[in-house]
Amino acid sequence: MPAALMQDELFRAFSTYALIVILKMMMMSFVTAYCRITRGAFANEEDVSCRSAEEKKKMLRTDPEVERVRRCHLNDLENVVPFVLVGLFYALSGPELSSALLHFRVFAGARIFHTFSYLGHLPQPCRALSFFLGLLVTFSMAYNVLSNVFAI
Amino acid sequence: MPAALMQDELFRAFSTYALIVILKMMMMSFVTAYCRITRGAFANEEDVSCRSAEEKKKMLRTDPEVERVRRCHLNDLENVVPFVLVGLFYALSGPELSSALLHFRVFAGARIFHTFSYLGHLPQPCRALSFFLGLLVTFSMAYNVLSNVFAI
Amino acid sequence: MPAALMQDELFRAFSTYALIVILKMMMMSFVTAYCRITRGAFANEEDVSCRSAEEKKKMLRTDPEVERVRRCHLNDLENVVPFVLVGLFYALSGPELSSALLHFRVFAGARIFHTFSYLGHLPQPCRALSFFLGLLVTFSMAYNVLSNVFAI
Repeated sequence: MPAALMQDELFRAFSTYALIVILKMMMMSFVTAYCRITRGAFANEEDVSCRSAEEKKKMLRTDPEVERVRRCHLNDLENVVPFVLVGLFYALSGPELSSALLHFRVFAGARIFHTFSYLGHLPQPCRALSFFLGLLVTFSMAYNVLSNVFAI
Repeated sequence: MPAALMQDELFRAFSTYALIVILKMMMMSFVTAYCRITRGAFANEEDVSCRSAEEKKKMLRTDPEVERVRRCHLNDLENVVPFVLVGLFYALSGPELSSALLHFRVFAGARIFHTFSYLGHLPQPCRALSFFLGLLVTFSMAYNVLSNVFAI
Repeated sequence: MPAALMQDELFRAFSTYALIVILKMMMMSFVTAYCRITRGAFANEEDVSCRSAEEKKKMLRTDPEVERVRRCHLNDLENVVPFVLVGLFYALSGPELSSALLHFRVFAGARIFHTFSYLGHLPQPCRALSFFLGLLVTFSMAYNVLSNVFAI
C-alpha cells in the first residue's frame, strides 16, 4: 500500500520530475564511460591491464572531452541534488499545484538543455542561461518554503 | 494544504536548517564563477570565444584559487548532502526537539565556519575542526536513527 | 514521537540500508585524509604550514593513490545519493517488502564491493560489474516508481 503522500497529485508530479532529472544525471556515467572508451583515455591502471606496456602509458591520460563530460556530471550533482532536496520540502509545504508544476517543468527543461549545451559545445550564453534558470527555480522553491515554515 | 509533517515544529526546524546549508552550498557556484572571471581562468573553450587566439590560450588554465573554491564546493557536497539525507530520517524518527535543534545548529555553524576557513586560508586546525564537527553531528544523528529503527 | 512512516517495516528497512551506504560514503573522507597524510600529498598550503619551504613544495602535489580515493568518493556521490533519493520515492510508493529488501541488499552489497574493488586495485571487471549492479538497482526502483505514479 503506497503511503498517503503518493496519493497526492502534487507529490506524484514532484516524484516524476525528480526522477527525470536524477535519471538524466545518472546517464552522465554512461557518457563518461563511452567517451573514455572511444577516446582511449582511462584513469585507472586496471582498466587497461590487457594492453601492452607502451599502450598503457598512452591510455592512462586525461582527455579534454572526458574532462568536459565529468565537469557536466559534477555540475549536475551540484544542481540536481539540491533541486530534489529543496523540492521535497517545497512539495510538503503545500504550494499551488500550477505554480509547483511550473517550477518542476522549467527546472527539468533547463537542466536537459544545460546538458546539451555543455556536451554539444554550444556557444555561450546557452550553458550559462540554462544554469542560472535552474538555480533560479531552486532558489524560488527555497524562498517559498522558508516563508512558510521558517523556524530557527 | 501543507502535509501534516510541516505542521510539526521539529520538521519545520529541520527544513529551515537544511535549506540554510543547501543554499550556502549553492552559493559556492557563484564564488566559483566570480573567481573564474576575476582571475581569468576558464575550463571551457566556449567561455572565452570572444577573445583573441593568444588570450584564449592564457585563459584556458587552472588557477590555484579557483581549484580551492571547487574543492570547497565538493567538500560541501560530500558533507551537506549526507547531513540532509541522514537528518531527514532523524527528523522522522522522533528525537527530542532540544537535542535535534542542537544537532542542526552545530552543523550549520560548523559548515559556515568551514567555508570561511577554506576560502579565507585560515591556519589549520580551523578547517579540520569545523569539518570534523560537521561529520560528528551527522554520525550522531545516524547513530540515533539506527538505534531506533535498525532493521536489516 | 516518531512519525507514522517510521512505524512502517519497509520504511525502517529503507532507512537502515540508506544509512549504511551513506555512512560508507562518508568513510571515504577518512580514507582520503589517511592517504594524504601517509603519502605526504596535500592540496592546501595551510595543511603544510609547519614545514620548511623545501618540504612544502614536495608535499603540495597530487598523488595517484590519493586521486584514486577521491575518484572512488566522487563515484559514491554519483551513485549513493541517487539511490537514496530514488529509494525514498520507491519506499513511499508501496512496493512488496520482499522485493524492496532485495533491491536494498543488492545495492548495499554492490557498493561495498565496489569500494573494495576500487581501493584494492582488484582486476576488472570487479569494479565495472559492481558499479553496473548498483546502477541497475537504482534504475529498477525508478522504473517501479514511474510505473506507479507517473504524472507529467
